[in-house]
Amino acid sequence: MYNFCNRLAVRSHLILAPHHSHPAPLPMESALFSSSPLSAFVPRSPPSLASRPLRLLSLPFSLLIHHSPPPRGGPPLLPRRLLRRFSPAAYADADAAAASAAESRSSGDRVVARPSSELRMGRPGGSGTGVAGDEKLRSLRELFARPDVAIDAYIIPSQDAHQSEFIAECFMRRAYLTGFTGSAGTAVVTKEKAALWTDGRYFLQAEKQLSPDWILMRSGNQGVPTTSEWLNDVLPAGCRIGIDPFLFSHDAAEELKEAISKKNHELILIKDFNLVDEIWKSRPKPPGKPTRVHDIKYAGVDVLSKLSSLRSVLVENGCTAIVISMLDEVAWLLNMRGSDVPNSPVFYSYLIVEISHATLFVDNNKVTPGVLDHLKSAGVELKPYEEILSEVESLAAKGAKLWLDTSCVNAAIVSIFRSACERHFTRLATKSRKQLNNGASSDLISIKSEDIRNGIPNGLYKVSPVAIAKAVKNKAEIEGMKNSHLRDAAALSEFWCWMEQEVKNNLTLTEVAVADKLFEFRKQQEGFIDTSFDTISGYGANGAVIHYKPTSDSCSFVGTDNLFLLDSGGQYVDGTTDITRTVHFGEPSAWQKECFTRVLQGHIALDQAIFPERMPGFVLDVLARSSLWKVGLDYRHGTGHGVGAALNVHEGPQSISFRFGNLTALQNGMIVSNEPGYYEDHSFGIRIENLLLVKEVDLPNSYGGIGFLGFEKLTFVPIQSKLIDTSLLSPMEIKWVNDYHSQVWEKVSPLVNVAVRDWLWRNTSHAACWTLKSRGKMRTQLMSTCLILSISMFARPIKQQRSVRERGGGGSRQGGRAVDSGLGVI
Amino acid sequence: MYNFCNRLAVRSHLILAPHHSHPAPLPMESALFSSSPLSAFVPRSPPSLASRPLRLLSLPFSLLIHHSPPPRGGPPLLPRRLLRRFSPAAYADADAAAASAAESRSSGDRVVARPSSELRMGRPGGSGTGVAGDEKLRSLRELFARPDVAIDAYIIPSQDAHQSEFIAECFMRRAYLTGFTGSAGTAVVTKEKAALWTDGRYFLQAEKQLSPDWILMRSGNQGVPTTSEWLNDVLPAGCRIGIDPFLFSHDAAEELKEAISKKNHELILIKDFNLVDEIWKSRPKPPGKPTRVHDIKYAGVDVLSKLSSLRSVLVENGCTAIVISMLDEVAWLLNMRGSDVPNSPVFYSYLIVEISHATLFVDNNKVTPGVLDHLKSAGVELKPYEEILSEVESLAAKGAKLWLDTSCVNAAIVSIFRSACERHFTRLATKSRKQLNNGASSDLISIKSEDIRNGIPNGLYKVSPVAIAKAVKNKAEIEGMKNSHLRDAAALSEFWCWMEQEVKNNLTLTEVAVADKLFEFRKQQEGFIDTSFDTISGYGANGAVIHYKPTSDSCSFVGTDNLFLLDSGGQYVDGTTDITRTVHFGEPSAWQKECFTRVLQGHIALDQAIFPERMPGFVLDVLARSSLWKVGLDYRHGTGHGVGAALNVHEGPQSISFRFGNLTALQNGMIVSNEPGYYEDHSFGIRIENLLLVKEVDLPNSYGGIGFLGFEKLTFVPIQSKLIDTSLLSPMEIKWVNDYHSQVWEKVSPLVNVAVRDWLWRNTSHAACWTLKSRGKMRTQLMSTCLILSISMFARPIKQQRSVRERGGGGSRQGGRAVDSGLGVI
Repeated sequence: MYNFCNRLAVRSHLILAPHHSHPAPLPMESALFSSSPLSAFVPRSPPSLASRPLRLLSLPFSLLIHHSPPPRGGPPLLPRRLLRRFSPAAYADADAAAASAAESRSSGDRVVARPSSELRMGRPGGSGTGVAGDEKLRSLRELFARPDVAIDAYIIPSQDAHQSEFIAECFMRRAYLTGFTGSAGTAVVTKEKAALWTDGRYFLQAEKQLSPDWILMRSGNQGVPTTSEWLNDVLPAGCRIGIDPFLFSHDAAEELKEAISKKNHELILIKDFNLVDEIWKSRPKPPGKPTRVHDIKYAGVDVLSKLSSLRSVLVENGCTAIVISMLDEVAWLLNMRGSDVPNSPVFYSYLIVEISHATLFVDNNKVTPGVLDHLKSAGVELKPYEEILSEVESLAAKGAKLWLDTSCVNAAIVSIFRSACERHFTRLATKSRKQLNNGASSDLISIKSEDIRNGIPNGLYKVSPVAIAKAVKNKAEIEGMKNSHLRDAAALSEFWCWMEQEVKNNLTLTEVAVADKLFEFRKQQEGFIDTSFDTISGYGANGAVIHYKPTSDSCSFVGTDNLFLLDSGGQYVDGTTDITRTVHFGEPSAWQKECFTRVLQGHIALDQAIFPERMPGFVLDVLARSSLWKVGLDYRHGTGHGVGAALNVHEGPQSISFRFGNLTALQNGMIVSNEPGYYEDHSFGIRIENLLLVKEVDLPNSYGGIGFLGFEKLTFVPIQSKLIDTSLLSPMEIKWVNDYHSQVWEKVSPLVNVAVRDWLWRNTSHAACWTLKSRGKMRTQLMSTCLILSISMFARPIKQQRSVRERGGGGSRQGGRAVDSGLGVI
Repeated sequence: MYNFCNRLAVRSHLILAPHHSHPAPLPMESALFSSSPLSAFVPRSPPSLASRPLRLLSLPFSLLIHHSPPPRGGPPLLPRRLLRRFSPAAYADADAAAASAAESRSSGDRVVARPSSELRMGRPGGSGTGVAGDEKLRSLRELFARPDVAIDAYIIPSQDAHQSEFIAECFMRRAYLTGFTGSAGTAVVTKEKAALWTDGRYFLQAEKQLSPDWILMRSGNQGVPTTSEWLNDVLPAGCRIGIDPFLFSHDAAEELKEAISKKNHELILIKDFNLVDEIWKSRPKPPGKPTRVHDIKYAGVDVLSKLSSLRSVLVENGCTAIVISMLDEVAWLLNMRGSDVPNSPVFYSYLIVEISHATLFVDNNKVTPGVLDHLKSAGVELKPYEEILSEVESLAAKGAKLWLDTSCVNAAIVSIFRSACERHFTRLATKSRKQLNNGASSDLISIKSEDIRNGIPNGLYKVSPVAIAKAVKNKAEIEGMKNSHLRDAAALSEFWCWMEQEVKNNLTLTEVAVADKLFEFRKQQEGFIDTSFDTISGYGANGAVIHYKPTSDSCSFVGTDNLFLLDSGGQYVDGTTDITRTVHFGEPSAWQKECFTRVLQGHIALDQAIFPERMPGFVLDVLARSSLWKVGLDYRHGTGHGVGAALNVHEGPQSISFRFGNLTALQNGMIVSNEPGYYEDHSFGIRIENLLLVKEVDLPNSYGGIGFLGFEKLTFVPIQSKLIDTSLLSPMEIKWVNDYHSQVWEKVSPLVNVAVRDWLWRNTSHAACWTLKSRGKMRTQLMSTCLILSISMFARPIKQQRSVRERGGGGSRQGGRAVDSGLGVI
C-alpha cells in the first residue's frame, strides 16, 4: 500500500512532443539503458533509491560494491528484472550474434541452434561499417533542428521497449551510433558534444571503438558526472532534452526529468520516431520468427486459469485492466514461447488483460494457426503490436482503472494514459459544471459527481502481480525444471569427461572452443533450444573478470596451470538451467584450494539453510559469505537470482543479495541460484553455482505456528574434489559433499554412456580420504573426516558399489591418478 | 541527507494552546508512552514507518513478531533509544521503587544502593490509594471545560520529556490516573469514556487494577483499534484532542496529528501544565539529588574536546546550535552522572551547545561546587531547567540554525522553535518589503534579501550526532567496561557458588530472594552503584516470560526441577554490565539440553562472526538463529542492543535484530549484547547473554582494501556445561566453550576467594569429555570432540593445571558429581 500511495503522489509532467505523420519505422523502439553491470543482480529500473546507484553509471565505484547499505528511505519496491553479475549479454560481441542465432532456429517442433563461435560475428555499427562516426553524429544533430524535434540534446540508452535483458539487433541503437559494442552504455549527444558512459569492464573496449568525436565517461571513476549532471553542466539553462519514451520505464524517465529540472531543462518525449532509426540506413529488420505454444504439460496451468487468477487480483485492487509489457510475463501468462531475442524464449509483444477479455499486441506474422487456436480458446484477441498506445488511450476513454507497473512499463504508455485521464477528467468536470449552470439542484450535482468519479479513468501504479505468480513455480514447472536439469547434467558430464582429456592433448584449446563444444553436447540433449546466456568460459585471470565473455579473436587457451571457470546454461522446452563449475586440470596451489574451499563452504551453508517463511532472501546472503569473511575475502556480486521455468535465466522478484532493498520473501516453489565466488584480479576466479528450489520443510517443531523453508538442489554435476582442502571442512560439510556426489551418481549415471559413467564414478566416489590418509597427511585432523566418510561409504547402496567393481572399479583402476589427474575426489 | 530533506518536508501545523499564567507545577512534564514492549529492541519513537508497529499498541500481534519485514518505504532513520525485550521497567511494580532507590543513594564518593525487595513498594496510584478511580476521572474531565484547556479528550502516554527508558516517580502520571502500574500503557480520556491500552504481558494485571470506569484495550488482539482509531471512532468529527507536548517526541506528535485529522480532529498542545498534575494531590517531588563528575579516567575524553568535536559537526552541517534532550547524551557529553532515575546514572536536564558557548538547563540544587567548577572549566553555563523553551525562542530570535533530532526532542521544544522561526520570517519579510517601498534600488534589496536569508532562523531536523559519538567507545571507556565486567564476573561467580548450595538446602528460596542476594554480592564490588535494570529472575515457566519481573508477593520458589534464567546487570563507576545465564540445578531433560545447546550455538556463531566494516547489525542476526531454525525453533526478540559505558544499559543507534530498518553500521569500539534465547510457553526459558566489543580484526587478507570487524568478549562467567548436548556441537564449537572457560578461569579466579575459586574451577575445566567417554555414551561421535579437547587440554597453561592439582584437583575431588551436580563441565 505504501508504494502505491507513494507512486500515486508522483505527478507526471512529462511533455509529449506533438504527434506527427512522420513515417516512423516502428513504434516499438528500444535500446540498452545504463544498467550498471558491476552489480550482480540489478533490479529492473525500480524507482527505489536503493537501486539508484545501479542505474546511474557515474556514481562512485565504492557505492556499487562493498556492501554499502542502500541509501535510507525511498520506497523499497520489489525489484523485478534481475540483471546478471556477468554481462547482460544483449549487446556486445556476441549479441548481434544472438539475433542471428534466433534466425537459425526453425519454428517447428525441433529447434535448431548454432554454436557460439558462429554467432560471434557482425556487430552493428562496428568500426568496420561504412558510415564514419562523425557522419552519424552530424546526421543526428541535423535532426535536432527539425521543427517536429526541436531539441538541444538526445539521450540514447541501452533498453528496448520492454526492459529486456537480451534484445534484438534492430534495437541496438546505441551500438550503431557510437560504434561501441559493449553490453552497457548510455550515449548523450548535444549540438556540440557527444559522450558515452560505460563502466570499468568496457573502458579499454570503448577507447578502441569510439571515434575522437566521443567523450568516454568512465563510470565509477571519481569525479565522473552522471548523464544528467553532465547535461546540467554543459548546456545553458532551459534546454530541451529529448528521449525516446519507449526506451525508458516511466520511473526512469521521471527520475531523469527531476534531475535535469535542476537546470530548468525540459524532458521532451519524442515518441513517434527514434532519431537513431531515422539515420540508420541499413537497419536490420525486427525479428519475425513464429511463436509456439508452450505445452500444457510443461506449463502446468492453462491460460484461462492464469487469466482468471489475474482478473481476481485486478478486481481485488479495484482495477478493470492491466498492461503487461515484460516479455517473459506475457509468455508465461499465455503459455507461449518465441525466439525474437537470443537466450530467452520470448517474443516482442504487449498484453492487456481486462476483466472480460484480453488482447495480445503482436505482429500477425508471428502467430501460426496453432498459436491462434490456442489464443482463441483462452479468449485472447490479437491486435498489431503498434496499436498498444491507441488501445491504452481508448481504455482511458472507457474509464478504465488501469494497473501499470511504472518500474517496467515504458514512459510512452504511462504518459499517454495519464494525458488521456486528464483530458477525460477535464471534459467530465466541464460537463458537470454546465449541468450546475443549467439549474440542476446541488443534490443532483452531488450524485452526478459521484457518477463522474466512478467513470473517470485512473491508474494503479504498482508492481505487476504477474511477477510473483510467475516466480512461484507450479508442479509441472518444477517437474520440467528437474528433468531439464538432469539432461543438462548429462551433457555437462559428457563435456567435462571430454574436456579432461582434451586439455591435456590439445595445447591450443581456446575458451571459445570449449564453449562451442559444450554447446554441442547440450544440443544433443532432447528438448534443447539454446544457451540461456552467453557462456562464460574463463581460464586463469579471465576467470577473475566476473562478466567475462571470450571472443574468438582474443580469447585465451585453456591449460593445466590455472583454474578454469565455466558458467553456462541451457534453454530446454521444459526448463532453464544455469550452472557454474570451477576446475583445475593440473595442480592447484594451496591458496587456490583454500579459496575454493571457502567458496564451497558458503555454497554449502546457503544450500543447507532452513529459515522461517516470509523471510527476504538478503537475510541468507551472509551465510554464503561468512567463510570468506573469516579470512578477509569476499565477492562483489549477489549470491542468488530467480530463474524462470523455460523462460528468462534471470527473473525477479526474489533474490539473495547483500542489497537490503529487496524485501520479497522467499516462497515455496521459487527457484534461486546459489553462486558464491571469489575473484583474484589478474590471477583466477572461482564460482560454484547450483540452482535451488525453495521448499517447505517438515521439522520436528514449528515455533509460533510458523512454517519453515529450505532448499532442494536442481543441479547435479560433480564439484571438483581436488580443489577442496578437507582440513578446512567440518564433518557436516564433508558429508554434504559426499551426499551430493552420491545423488549426482544416482541421478546422472543412468543418462550417460560407459566412458562418461566412469568419469562420473571417479568424480563422485569418496575414496580420496583413504588416499590422503595413507599419505600420512593431516592424519589427526582428518580422523573425524574419515569417520564420517566411512559411515557414508557404508551407507552407499551396495548395488552401486558392486556395479563399479564389475566395471573394474573406477576408482582403483585409475589408481593414484585420482588425485594427480584433473579431477580428484574427497 | 535523505532523512534531512524528508523531514524538512514535514510541515508542522500543531496548534499551540494560548499561553497562560496558570501556575504550572513544573514545565518539565512527562509520562510513559505506548512503546510496545513486545518487541525486543524498539527504536526511540522514530518517524520511520518501520518502527510504527512498535509504537501503535493495537496493531495485529502478528506484525510484532515472526520476522515480518518492515513496511516498505519511509525514511529508515537510525533508531536511537533501544528498549528492552523485557520491561522498560520504568514503571510497574518496582519502579516507584527505583525512584526510592535513587533516594537511598548518597551523592558522595561511595554510592549506596538498596536491594530489590525493599524497592518493590509504594506504587503511585495503586488500588490502595485514597482517591477512587472515578473521582480522578471526574476531576480530570472538569478541567476539559476550563477555557484555557477547552478539549474533548486527553491522551496520557508513558513518556517523560526526554524519552527515557527509566523515569522518576513524579512523572508516572498514567499509573496515578489509571491505577494500572504495568510498564507500558497509554490512557485516553474523553468526556464520556476512558480507555487504557496495554499489551499481552499486562492484560491480567490491568484487569485487576483498572476500575470499571476504564475500558481495557488489549493491544495486539484482533480488532482492537489504535488510540487514534478509537478517538476517530468514538468522537464526533472536529473535536479538540489535547496532549502534553513535552511527553511526545515531535515525530510522534506529528504522526498522531495526521491520524486524527482523518476525522477532522485538532491536536491541541497544552504545554503550560499537565492535566494529571493538576489533579494529583500528593504528587511526589521531582528528584533532586546532586549530580557528580564522571572521572576523566573513566570518561577518557574531556568535555572541551567533546564539545569541540560536536561544534565541528554543527559547522559542517551549517548549524549554529543544537538542543540535546536525551539524558544519557547530556551526561556523556558533559562527563557528568546523576541519580534522578533508577538504573541509569543520568539527571534531568537539557543541553544547548552553540558554536561559542554551551548552556546546561538543570535544577541548581543538583549542581555541587565540584560539578560547577567542572562545568565552568568547559565553558558551560547553567540555567534553570524550566528555561529551555524561552531559550529556544531566543535562539530563534538570534537567527540560529538549530539542529533538532525530532525523533527524540519533544514536541513542545520543536513547535516553539518553528513558531518563532515563522514569526521572524514574517517580520523580516515585512521589513524587506518596506525597504523596497522606500525606494531602495533593487540591487540593494537583493543584497539585503541575502542577508535576511542568512539572518532567518531555521532548523536541521536530523538524528543527533551525539548518539553515534557516544556509541563508539574510547580507550578509557573500553578499559572501564572491561574492568567493571571482571568485578561483575567475580560477584556473579560468588553468587552462583552460593546459589548452587542454597537451592538444595533452602526449599523456599524465591526468585526475588535470589535477585536480592545477587544485589548483595554486586554491592560488595568496588565502584558498584546500582543494578542497570530490574533483575529478571525466572524459574521454570516464569523464564519463558521474556519480560518477567518477579514481585515479592507473587514470585516462585527456585527449585531443582526446571531451568532457572537470570538476566541482570550492574552500574559501576567505570562501566555498565548486562548478563544472562540459564542453569539447571537438577537433571535437565534431553529436550532442554537440545534447546540450550542450539541457543548456545547461535551465541557462538554471532560471537565468532567476522564481517566487513560498514555492515548493519541486522545482517548478523541470522547467525544467532540458524541453529534454532534447523529444528523449527526461534525467539521473538532481537539478538543484540547497544550498551552505554557507565550509562544506559540500552542505547542506540546500533542493534543486531531481525528488524531490517536499522541500517546503522557496526563500528570499531561499539558495544553490543549477544543474547539469543528460546522460550517455551508455560514451561521454561533459555537465554545466554554476553556483552561484546566490536573490534577491528587483523586478517591475512583485505579484499578490496576493506577492513574487517569481529567481537571481543567483555563478559566472563561460566556457561553451564551440564546443559550442553555435546553431540550437537562441532569441534569448533566445543573449542569455543573450552577456550571461553579457560579465559573465565584466568581472568576471574584471581578475584575470588578459595571456595568460589573451587566452584569456578569445576565450572571452567574440560574434564567431562572423559567422563562421558568412560560412560560409553556416543563414543564414536565424540571421538573428534575428544581429539580437540585433548589438544586444548594440553595447551592449557601448565601452571594452571598444577595449581588445581595442588588444591586437590577440583574436578577429581568432586568425582562423578561434576555431572550429577548442578553445574557440569564439558
